[in-house]
Amino acid sequence: MAGAAAAGEPVCPLFHEAVELVGRRWTGAILRSLMDGPLRFSEVAAAIPELSDRLLSERMKELEARGLVKREVIPGPPLRVRYCLSPMGHELEPALGELQSWARRWLSSSN
Amino acid sequence: MAGAAAAGEPVCPLFHEAVELVGRRWTGAILRSLMDGPLRFSEVAAAIPELSDRLLSERMKELEARGLVKREVIPGPPLRVRYCLSPMGHELEPALGELQSWARRWLSSSN
Repeated sequence: MAGAAAAGEPVCPLFHEAVELVGRRWTGAILRSLMDGPLRFSEVAAAIPELSDRLLSERMKELEARGLVKREVIPGPPLRVRYCLSPMGHELEPALGELQSWARRWLSSSN
Repeated sequence: MAGAAAAGEPVCPLFHEAVELVGRRWTGAILRSLMDGPLRFSEVAAAIPELSDRLLSERMKELEARGLVKREVIPGPPLRVRYCLSPMGHELEPALGELQSWARRWLSSSN
């Protein structure tokens, strides 16, 4: 945020796109689960117990299509699939880390 | 992110709550418009032209209820109302700033 914006100056459309992308239901949690390294589908599912497999699968496809997540097939047998963040996805770490800090500071006592 | 989490370790519920809160449709843009100082309703509306007044009003009430935004009445005449971030809202600045940087780096060329 370089300097003060004039009152009512339009919000950057790229920012708006980013916050809607990351804020889409469950997307933030999925990205966060992958921050520490590649996971198998079942491991992402275990990290977010409230999320159904069907919806997780849908979100994963969206994240692949947007270039944030990569699907890797590890030759077998047994053939295995795992998911990892692309460089684009990994570079969300500072933003999501700041949001985690904020959440610990402000949400733990307000509930 | 202190150290690597075990594979499939549950995503922090406070993080999940934060990302769903900030990522709720239009909420990120509204918060961002207020980062540089208090604005009148019409100025927030001007900063986010695609957002209807009805929905902006709804979101503002939600943000007030969550303690992120404060409504100030400035005695008149003419009586004026303006909106500003609470300390809780202001402390989202690092997270939203990082997201803005990410958006500039990754979304401008991928569209």
